[in-house]
Amino acid sequence: MPISIIVHGGAGNDFDDRVDVFERGVTRSVQAGWSILKNGGTALDAVEAAVRVMEDDPTFDAGTGSYLNTAGEVEMDAFIMDGATLNNGAVAGIQRVKNPISVARIVMEHTPHSLFVGTGAETLARQFGVPVCPMEELVAGSSSHLQGEDLLAGMKPQGLDTVGAIALDESGSIAAAISTGGTNEKMPGRVGDSPLIGCGAYADGLLGAACGTGRGEDLMKILFAKTALDRMASGLNPQEAADSILATLNERVQGEGGIILMNMRGEVGSAYNTHHMVHAWINADGEMTLWT
Amino acid sequence: MPISIIVHGGAGNDFDDRVDVFERGVTRSVQAGWSILKNGGTALDAVEAAVRVMEDDPTFDAGTGSYLNTAGEVEMDAFIMDGATLNNGAVAGIQRVKNPISVARIVMEHTPHSLFVGTGAETLARQFGVPVCPMEELVAGSSSHLQGEDLLAGMKPQGLDTVGAIALDESGSIAAAISTGGTNEKMPGRVGDSPLIGCGAYADGLLGAACGTGRGEDLMKILFAKTALDRMASGLNPQEAADSILATLNERVQGEGGIILMNMRGEVGSAYNTHHMVHAWINADGEMTLWT
Repeated sequence: MPISIIVHGGAGNDFDDRVDVFERGVTRSVQAGWSILKNGGTALDAVEAAVRVMEDDPTFDAGTGSYLNTAGEVEMDAFIMDGATLNNGAVAGIQRVKNPISVARIVMEHTPHSLFVGTGAETLARQFGVPVCPMEELVAGSSSHLQGEDLLAGMKPQGLDTVGAIALDESGSIAAAISTGGTNEKMPGRVGDSPLIGCGAYADGLLGAACGTGRGEDLMKILFAKTALDRMASGLNPQEAADSILATLNERVQGEGGIILMNMRGEVGSAYNTHHMVHAWINADGEMTLWT
Repeated sequence: MPISIIVHGGAGNDFDDRVDVFERGVTRSVQAGWSILKNGGTALDAVEAAVRVMEDDPTFDAGTGSYLNTAGEVEMDAFIMDGATLNNGAVAGIQRVKNPISVARIVMEHTPHSLFVGTGAETLARQFGVPVCPMEELVAGSSSHLQGEDLLAGMKPQGLDTVGAIALDESGSIAAAISTGGTNEKMPGRVGDSPLIGCGAYADGLLGAACGTGRGEDLMKILFAKTALDRMASGLNPQEAADSILATLNERVQGEGGIILMNMRGEVGSAYNTHHMVHAWINADGEMTLWT
């Protein structure tokens, strides 16, 4: 089977001066996932590794570098899904872990449940030996660049948001993973599309997988990721499905965002209506393509 | 336009001895919503009122009477959606309010967000003047009947779960609302399908609305409510769509649950694979039908 991995670092506007930083970040991410696939690893391992790279990079709004809520706190969300089984795991509003995506995977693989929120999510992480860190250690990069006078002036977010990855492994399994620090100026306790199955991401071994990014409340209204995959089920290829769901996002909810899609042959598509969506793909031949 | 309202009190097994109690509860609920519609009220007001009746009735696993988690605490979820605008609001893991559905409506109507979790949800409720109660006041009925020896013996839940309501008002607007105390033996922080848009419920003014109930982790995998509505979009009537999604639930994820559906003419359908799903419908002529 052809292996394939695509990742994105979020959709956003007005950051032309930092495009090269985002490009370096998604390149490191996609290469981390690719090396796992190339060595016979699973799609789940590949997407978790790719997302962890972006969580650990303060450039991105996920893990370290997450936006702060209006109370000045970090609250993060993450989701992972195995297309072969439809098994999935997520956390929402988790505060003191470096890699929410790995806690989401613990939810999927080691509990009878699919979503844990708030302090319950952190308690679960502790029970499984995940190191808990002071929240201050997560504040850097994208979380800090809008603090101070900019934040007080009520400026709109200027960075990217949610990050995501889709991988297809040599056994033919597909998986998706996404992670986010949410939006700037979000109220405490607010959760967006990312940890909600079918909104931020979805993986179905019969079809492919999708990861979205953008204004979460817009994406939720139309079940952005699942609806895009349904368009593939009705005969569209990944690029046509990406264009089609962006048209729906524009027409039905006047929303803002972007999407990456992969089918079960490892072919990909992407679309966005923001200025940028930094994303990178490595195909079955090991060739990387980078879009910004 | 024909007005119409359908409510359910949850799907479940092994409670033959309490069917009459559940029947009285859903009858009170559907009549509360109906009286609002009949007097020219909105579908949103009708579904909120219908669900509040079941939240306040300790017979049901929602609000007062919610199941307890393994730490002995109440954690509740609720979701409301306006089909005309696709606007929606939800809370997850909220602990000290009598009527989570009304907090979900505050989220929808008075914040820029769609979902609040944990202590953030409770803080929001306080900010909008919602009375906060000791958690002990919510422990009654369905939350207590499995405590003590039964709980220690690891018995499966014997009551019902998530409650829900769908209404169509005289202006032609459709709305859906659901509320739950989750499952018995759930881990702290666990959230099921109910507050996740498209999983537990969905309302689309172009199609109709759906409310699901059952093992949340099963329903989530197939976006139970949204997928059922998609079947109506492809030409099925509400009863055919209900039967179709139950077949998918059985075949794809071997899941357990039930669903109620309504189209934009006020016609309804329902199906479940549990022993019971207590539900009641009042049609445009004011005639009530009760199923158990």
